[in-house]
This record gives sequence, structure tokens and C-alpha cells, in this order.
Amino acid sequence: MSNSSRKEFRTLVSLEDARKALLPFYKTAEEQVPLPECYGRTLARNIASRVDVPGFDRASMDGFAVKARDTWGADEAEPRSLRIAGIIHAGDTPAVKVEPGTAVEIATGAMMPEGANAVVMVEQTDTEGDTVNIRKPVSPGENVMHAGADVMQGELVLRKGTRLTSREISVLAAVGLKEVPVYRRPGVAIISTGNEIASPGEPLKPGQIYDVNAYAVGAGVIENGGEPCYYGIVRDEPDAFRKALLDASTKADLVLTSGSTSAGASDMMFSTVGGVGKVLVHGIKIKPGKPTIIGEANGRPFIGLPGYPSSALTIFNEVAAPLIRHMSGHPEPERSTVKAKMALTLQSEAGREVLQPVGLTRTKDGLAAYPIEKGSGAVTSLRDADGYVEIGEDVHVIEEGSEVEVRLFSPVISFPDLLIIGSHCLGIDVITDLMGEKGFTVRSINVGSLGGFRSIRKGVADVAGVHLLDESGVYNEPFLKSLGIGDATLVKGYIREQGIIVARGNPLHIRGIADLPGKRIVNRTKGSGTRTLFDMELRKLAAEKGVPFEKLIESIRGYDVEAKTHSAVAAAIIAGKADAGLGIKTVAVQNRLDFIPLRDEEYDFVIRKEVLDRPATKAFLEILKSKEFDAELQNLGYRLKI
Amino acid sequence: MSNSSRKEFRTLVSLEDARKALLPFYKTAEEQVPLPECYGRTLARNIASRVDVPGFDRASMDGFAVKARDTWGADEAEPRSLRIAGIIHAGDTPAVKVEPGTAVEIATGAMMPEGANAVVMVEQTDTEGDTVNIRKPVSPGENVMHAGADVMQGELVLRKGTRLTSREISVLAAVGLKEVPVYRRPGVAIISTGNEIASPGEPLKPGQIYDVNAYAVGAGVIENGGEPCYYGIVRDEPDAFRKALLDASTKADLVLTSGSTSAGASDMMFSTVGGVGKVLVHGIKIKPGKPTIIGEANGRPFIGLPGYPSSALTIFNEVAAPLIRHMSGHPEPERSTVKAKMALTLQSEAGREVLQPVGLTRTKDGLAAYPIEKGSGAVTSLRDADGYVEIGEDVHVIEEGSEVEVRLFSPVISFPDLLIIGSHCLGIDVITDLMGEKGFTVRSINVGSLGGFRSIRKGVADVAGVHLLDESGVYNEPFLKSLGIGDATLVKGYIREQGIIVARGNPLHIRGIADLPGKRIVNRTKGSGTRTLFDMELRKLAAEKGVPFEKLIESIRGYDVEAKTHSAVAAAIIAGKADAGLGIKTVAVQNRLDFIPLRDEEYDFVIRKEVLDRPATKAFLEILKSKEFDAELQNLGYRLKI
Repeated sequence: MSNSSRKEFRTLVSLEDARKALLPFYKTAEEQVPLPECYGRTLARNIASRVDVPGFDRASMDGFAVKARDTWGADEAEPRSLRIAGIIHAGDTPAVKVEPGTAVEIATGAMMPEGANAVVMVEQTDTEGDTVNIRKPVSPGENVMHAGADVMQGELVLRKGTRLTSREISVLAAVGLKEVPVYRRPGVAIISTGNEIASPGEPLKPGQIYDVNAYAVGAGVIENGGEPCYYGIVRDEPDAFRKALLDASTKADLVLTSGSTSAGASDMMFSTVGGVGKVLVHGIKIKPGKPTIIGEANGRPFIGLPGYPSSALTIFNEVAAPLIRHMSGHPEPERSTVKAKMALTLQSEAGREVLQPVGLTRTKDGLAAYPIEKGSGAVTSLRDADGYVEIGEDVHVIEEGSEVEVRLFSPVISFPDLLIIGSHCLGIDVITDLMGEKGFTVRSINVGSLGGFRSIRKGVADVAGVHLLDESGVYNEPFLKSLGIGDATLVKGYIREQGIIVARGNPLHIRGIADLPGKRIVNRTKGSGTRTLFDMELRKLAAEKGVPFEKLIESIRGYDVEAKTHSAVAAAIIAGKADAGLGIKTVAVQNRLDFIPLRDEEYDFVIRKEVLDRPATKAFLEILKSKEFDAELQNLGYRLKI
Repeated sequence: MSNSSRKEFRTLVSLEDARKALLPFYKTAEEQVPLPECYGRTLARNIASRVDVPGFDRASMDGFAVKARDTWGADEAEPRSLRIAGIIHAGDTPAVKVEPGTAVEIATGAMMPEGANAVVMVEQTDTEGDTVNIRKPVSPGENVMHAGADVMQGELVLRKGTRLTSREISVLAAVGLKEVPVYRRPGVAIISTGNEIASPGEPLKPGQIYDVNAYAVGAGVIENGGEPCYYGIVRDEPDAFRKALLDASTKADLVLTSGSTSAGASDMMFSTVGGVGKVLVHGIKIKPGKPTIIGEANGRPFIGLPGYPSSALTIFNEVAAPLIRHMSGHPEPERSTVKAKMALTLQSEAGREVLQPVGLTRTKDGLAAYPIEKGSGAVTSLRDADGYVEIGEDVHVIEEGSEVEVRLFSPVISFPDLLIIGSHCLGIDVITDLMGEKGFTVRSINVGSLGGFRSIRKGVADVAGVHLLDESGVYNEPFLKSLGIGDATLVKGYIREQGIIVARGNPLHIRGIADLPGKRIVNRTKGSGTRTLFDMELRKLAAEKGVPFEKLIESIRGYDVEAKTHSAVAAAIIAGKADAGLGIKTVAVQNRLDFIPLRDEEYDFVIRKEVLDRPATKAFLEILKSKEFDAELQNLGYRLKI
């Protein structure tokens, strides 16, 4: 390892400086591709036409080629009669000439015969034998497209740097290009590193997770104009890594790795890159994405992306994507930011820039951004986000309602027609499907009932699905008042039966909440209706037993394992990971598990008044009352209220 | 031919009814594709996870796995000391257990050992031999991601109909999917018909043009999620066409032809489709695109697109693209319309709907749309357009300033930073390149000097390049007043020498304008400065000779052949298609042609005051004064004014 690279170790640089370190590699190469394969590529040269388009004067209508002068004075009452001297089809070389007093029948696109300077549309003529009667005069040039009128020989038709869509490809074909000079797509080697990862489809050993980054980053490479080449998984050993790096850097234009960013593995990667080539950057002052390595090997750029998928994709988008776009000649994406109001106050971390994933929703004041928080390393947080907000190093708090700029993941925001936030329910899946059949899209985010109520108050959710039990034993309604939600209306949904789900045959003979201490359970998310019910029952039990609540829950293994969905609870019990979990009867029945009923639960919907007039909301309300929905509910073991 | 198809002949239907005729073919099929190949495809099924993500409790930081209780009370002054019982790397199956009073060193992503319920970040510890000193307490669950916290087994992670980008592919990889159920891409057979077309790259015979539609439509097929299959060119003969149709309809999901829409060829196609299968639509009440045939053959849909490229692409986009999108599961593109004010009054044709291509520009009142008019069948009109305006059957006129809805070709409008409209000049190409180096995009549309002035008056162009000679012999300045242009400023550009360009060696001994009668010339567009100069000189000559102007120009062949660019004039002379043409000296010099000077010409720029503050305009003005530009001008044989 050279001293020069050593000294950069652990000197965090800004995102901008990280990008700058790669500037020497901003180069392009050119290749010729056949016309039918150039879609989506970028022109590497200006294209001047070598031909006139059209290459000859041509008829732009079906009709008769004439000398314009011969038609002058013609009208319905007194048509001008001309002798038909012949016929010209498209593609013919005209063998006839138009002399005064004659006309030649001509098809759209056919070459004008000598002597003619205009075409009379067929609709303005009638023929008798050898004679055509012309009922309307034409002026010279009428219904004729002159040679070169579309494109003249020598004309610059498309500029270097143009992205080729069907419209540009029309022009390339029209000027007769068989092969098109475009920027070569950079080959991007993708190496997955780490001892903990396995390829999708393989069985996972304990401690392993699936390799997400290779495929996510590979898709990103395609998206930005490169060609991914997958080098598979390389373990955290200097020799294996050195071999992969040397091999990839001789073949590819850019080498990406992801993972191996824990301290030890990162040091190994740092020394190996330093040994093979040179480390340019080690660590970026940004969250997520701090443990990034940028270097070169064999004169090719190397970027070691972080291991967490959201971090890897973020650094890929910020650092690698601009380089790939440059290499492939892709223009920088336009209009990729929108302004929005922060839907809730966001705390940030000082000392490094933060890229906070956010979802977007439409409110009466424009767009609102709500942070997507799923914990460090969550894969699903990017799925649910529309873009991110850059929070500067020196910013500690972004207040609710303040304007932020959101950098979008896609040029177009695909707003769902209805944003449902709240407690997970299989009924929501049914509603989503029925909405889909009516042509409406739904995004549902599972954050529990309380989160649903809150997101209605913030004006984020259009609809919240809730089943929250008040201390007084009433579902949902009391929370509108206690949480200060004025601009929303509660629509009654349906009844679900809540209880304890246990393995088939109930092998541990669980009869109620009192049997849970000493067992392994799977809990639900805090703020969910089921969780609230569970905690109420546990408090009751603690009081009965005369033990503190905290003490009681310590005796229940898995109390702090939070499943986000009902079906996930069932899956955990089937897999033998838990002995019991609270949930609805349906899930037990569908998974052939046993069920110990506790009480009826009312699953209702809170709808913001502002969105009541929206077509999607109307469709949602219609579905709630529909026979189809009722039938589907019965299949689920639910029932409509009343 | 059956009677049932016969009776639909020439009954024009609306665009909507044309789309409806294809509804029976709106079907989808499904296939499994390997994960690395699913980018851009659409999910054909809901995806529920078969695993927890992560599959185990894992450390989300480098540090020490501990019992949280063992850290309580720790601070800088009084750290808690724990014995280090071992180390766990990512991917390891922990062999150690955390007992009270011990800690285990752990890497990010590694599996939590039994007995531990939190991780202390390495930054908040220091080690001495076997002991770690903890300087900050942690609570249970801190820096730990629980099994299933990201995705629980059984959870619905992605819905059917989702388009797969890197973010969704992350999730598919995370849940371990090796193959992904997606909608099959429909195979689309593309047959080019007509006797007048040749494949790009082949030499053109007289009367032939290049096959544009196959490649333009093929690109459109890819754009909308299908796979094009090129069947080449089929001549207008019933047997050849029947054979191609039968072959294509057994192999492809959709058969497209384009061309053969002149009356005779269209009849042939109509009867052949009717004989092989059934004609559903013959003719659509729309411009462009009237001569469209829709039918079925072998149970597969058939669309016979019109021959003109802009018509073919329009009907493709309106009728074929929605079908292909449905088949491939692509969502209908969103936000594809914008509102704009019409920049000038537009006459329309009654009795059928018109889709008018327009360009878009930003003005202080929002967007303005200007019609792109290049004559029937021009390929370049779509290149220069951003979208089109639908003009209803019953609308005859759209007044200047009235609001129209523009349907965009791309979801994002790529506004050029500077829109230059006016006379073509090589200097504009230089400016475009220099602007490009500064990161600004330029769109230049060549409509001649007068068109440039007018588009400034309408607020369409940002800049007009002009060289228009007043009767008094003054360039450009007088037109600001005479054309009533108030909100613009004239910036002096450079001097070009105008004259007659003739073949090398001047074989016809042309000495001046007076020698042109009897020769073949290539003229320039009406309204261009060169054209105005030419007409002034010709009027002078006519007066001298005592002949009427009209009579004089009849004696000059090619007077009404309008080249749009200077270089196109040179190309026509080199190709021997013209003996002479008016143009600038540069073009003659660059093409090694002879030049007979007539006079100095001032090429200037009119800039709308409204855009003067724009960064692109400032860059443009800087370039005009720059040394680089001066040097490039000298290369062109121009010179800066003064």
C-alpha cells in the first residue's frame, strides 16, 4: 500500500468531492449499431443527410398530374377536360410526359412526370374513358412535395448527443442510415462482496441474507445506459477480492462492488484496492452511504458501494450513475426535483449530509413530503419512497410545513389515486384489487392504527384503516376527538374477530392471555390495534397477578419482535418461530392454525374530507357498499357492520 | 371477399371506435424471467415473501453485542467494563453466548448472539486486552434489526402490475426470487409495404424513398413494451402480401404494416385482409392517418398503418401503442398532457379530427405552443415537435392566445435552454456547439429571416437569427419597427459575403444574376435573407431588361425549389442537380465551389427582452463576444462587425 493512498484513509469527503474524484474517468467511446438496434441510444456524431428527402418531386395526393395553367378557370359548372396520357404508381419511373392539354393519373408518393407542376386531387375530378374532367383549379406546386423539401442533401438533421426515440429514428431512416454512430454503452462489472450474502434462489444458511445490491445496482446500470456484467459473490478474503478486481478491471469500463463495509472487511478492501491501484476516496460525509471507497485499478474507475441496499443505491445514484450516463452519452435527467412541504418535523444528524427518503402526496396546498422510516438497512423503504430530501450538514431540524426540495427517483411521480396508511388488513388487499379493476391505483403503507390516525391529522394519508380500542372499550370514533382530528370523517368498515393464533392442534394448550408467559410469541407493531388490544389484556393480567407490567412482558419471549402484518404472524407460527401471536380469525383459518377468540373488532376507515370529492375516493366508498366486497369479506371470515 | 367486410369499406370511424375495434385482443400472457433480466418489465402476479428479511436478528452497527441492562449507568466518567467473550463476523453462525458481564464484538450485518439484546457502537467503546469499556448505555433493541423487521414471511411485498425498476428489484432480490413472473412482451410483426420503398443503406432507384416506418414503428414497439420482428419490404401484390400476412399472423401477437395507402394499393390490402381474415375498420376520421385498416387474421389483430411517417407514427401511438402496452402490462403513461397558449392562429379542416404537431416554449404567461408545419409527409416535423394538439371535428379555427391541451410525446418536455428560430447559418451550428460545452441546449428551427422576426413578435423564439435586407438597403434594424416588434433587442452578429455559388471552375461562365435565365438553380426558402436579396436582384434585372418579373423567373429552372439551408444549396450544385444558387462565400469555399460575390450581408440576432436575464441567453451573449467564437468565425470566412 502506497503512502499517498494511506494518507486519505478515513478522511471523509463531501459528496461533491467524491464525484470530482471520478472526473478523470468521464470519457466516451463510439460504436456503429444497426438502425433497428439504436433505440434509446445517444448519437455520438452530428448527422448530415447524404440525400434529399424526398429525392424527387412527388405527388402528395392521389389524383392527376397536370400543368397548373391547364386547370385555371375550372369550376363545377365548367370543368376543364384533359386527355389522360398514362398512369404512374408509387415507385414507378415515369415513362410519360405531361404535354399541354393532357394529364397523368398519379398515386400518392409517386414521382411527378416531366411537364407537370401540380396535382389535382382525385376527389375534384371525374373520368369518362380517356378524359378527366377537372372541377377545381390548382396553382403551381399544389399537392406536390418538392425534392429536398423535407430534408436537403447536406442538411444537419440530428445533433450529437441526441437520445434516439421513434421520432429521431424516423429521420435516420429517411436519410438512409443503415448504421448509426452512438456512444458505446459502458460495461459495468458488478461484484458482490461479503461472507453473509447468498444468491437469490439459493437456500439461506444461518446468518445469511440474499444478495440484493447486485441486482438493484445492475438495474440502475441499465437505467443509466450501461451494460451490467455480474461477477457473482466474492468472499471477504484479500486474494479472492484481488483476483476478482484484477479480472473485472481489465474487462469492464467501471467496477462496482457492494458490501464488505464493516470495519474489518472495509480495511481489507481498502488495502487491496490500494495494492492493485490507488484509493482516491475512503468515506463520504453522507447518510446513508458513509462507508464508500472510490479508487482506480488498471486505469479503470472502481467504486466500493456500501452494503445496505438503500445506501448502495443512494451512492450508486449520486456517484456512479452520473459517470455511467456520461460514458453512454445519456443526458442528465431533467425535472427531477419538486418542491413540497414537510408533513412532519424531521430531526437530522449533524456533521454529515443526510439523504432522507420521502413519499409524496397531494394536498390542497400542493405537495407534501412524508419521511419513510424503516430503520437502517431496510430494503422496503426505497420501494415506498418517491424520492429524497437533501438535508445539509449543518441542519438539525426541518420543521413541519417548511418547504423542501425533493429529488425524485423517476422523472414522473406516479401518485397513487388513493394513499391508505394505517393498520394492515387483508380487506385492504381486496379493496386494492377492486380499485384496480376500476382503473384506480392504491398505495398502502402499514404503520398501525395510531400511525394511520396521525397521518390523517398531518394531511398525508387520504384514508386510514384503523381498529383502535379506546380505554372505554369503544373502537376508533373516540380517537378523532382525542387526537384532534377535525377535517376527517369516520366510515364504518367491517367486523373482524381478534384472538390468539396458535399452531394447529394447539400443542401447548394455550387457553388465553394468561397462558402466554413462558411462551415464544410474535408481537405486532406498536400503535396497531392488535398491539393495543394485546397490551390492554396484558395489563389486565398483570393487575390480576399483582406483578408489574414490565416484569410480565419480560417473561414473554418475542414481545419486542414486531410483525408488520397479520399474515406474517401466521407465517412465524407455521415456521415454528413462535408459539403464539395475536391476530384475526381469518388468518388462523386460512393458514389452518388454531384460534382462541378474545373479542370482536371494528375495522373502520378515516377519510380526509378534502379528498371526499375525488373520483378514487368515491370509487372506494362505492366498493365498501358493494356486493362484491361483501362476498369477498365473507370469504375472509369478516362481516359488514349491522 | 365476404359481404360482411365489404360493407364496412370506406365507412370512416372515429379514433375512439377504431380503438374499440381492437378491444377483443386486449389480453396478456405471463412468463418467468431470471431476476437480472426483469428490469423494465411488469409483474404479472402479487409477490408475497417466503422468507423473513432479515432472517435473523442482526447488528446494524459495528460494535459490541451486550445485554442492555449491563450498560445502564455508563458514561464518559464511569464506563461499564465487560469481558469480551468472542467475535462475530457477518455471515458467521454465532458460537458464543452473551452472559451477564460479557460482550461479544460484532460486525454490521452479523447475527446477534444468544443472550444479547442490543449493540453498543464501536465509537462509544474502547478496549483494553480482553475488556471493553462502554461509555454510553443502550436500551433493549438498540442498533439491532429484528428478524422480519424489513419484510415478514408471508407479507405482500409487490403488487401485480408494478413496473420493475431498481427499487422494486431490490425487494425481489431481498425475498430471494430467482425468477420473476412478468407479462410476456408481445411479439409485433412489422411489414413494410409499397413499391416505392427501399431499405436504408441500399441505393435508391428513381421514384424510391427509404423505408422509414418500419424502424420508427419498431422503436415505438420497444418503447411500449413489445418486441419488434422485422418482416422486410413486401411489394404491392396480392400474393406477396397474403403470404407475408399469413406467415406473420401465425407467429406474432400483432401484425403491423405501413404504406400502400394510395387508393389502388389500399384496395388490394383491404381485399387481401378480408380474404385471409376480417376487416374491422377501413378509414379513420382523423388527420393525419385517415387511410388506416384494422382487421384480424388467424385470430391475431392486424393494423395497416398509413404510409406517411408522421401519419404512421400518429396512428401507431393512438391505436397500436395502447394495445401493446396492455399486452405487456405497461401502465398507461401518466401526466402526458400540458396546457399551453396557442402562439398563433391555426386554421383547421372541418369534418375530421386533426392531430396538429406543436413545439412548446416557455413564456412569462406559461407555456406557448407553436405549430410545426412542414407539409404533408414530412419526416422532420415530428422531430421538431414536442407533442400535438387535438382539434375536434367541428373546430375550424383556434385563435391565437387560446388555451390548448398538448399531448406530449415524452413524459418530460426537454425544453431547449435557448430556442433559435430564423435563417440557417453555419454560425448557429458553432454557437450551438459552444453552448453545449457550457452545458446549455439549443434547438434551432430554420424558417428564414422573416419567420424569425415573426416568431419573436409572437413570443415563440427566444432568439431569431436574421439577415433581412430593407428596400432602403439596410439590414435587419428597420424590420423591428416595420413589423411592430417592441419587446426585443437587436444584437449585431457578424458579416457574411453573399453571392452566386457555381460548380468548380464555373463551367457555364456565370458572371452575375443576368446570366441565370436558362440555367438550373436551387433557390432558398421564401422569407430568408438570401431569397430576399435574390428577388431584389432579379427585379432589378427584370426592370433593366424590360420584362415582367413573373416572366423572368419562369426562364430560371428550379426557381421554386426551396433549399432550407446554405449547405443544401452547395450539395445540390456538387450533385449536378443545379448550375447555381445564391449563398454565402463560406459554403462555396468549404465545398471547393466557385463564388461570384454580390454584397456584404449582416447576420444579426433579435432577442426577446423577456429572456435577456436567462442564464442561457447570457451565455449566448458571452459567446458572441468571445475569442473562441471570433476564431471559429474566421474559419468560416465570416468576420465580426467593426
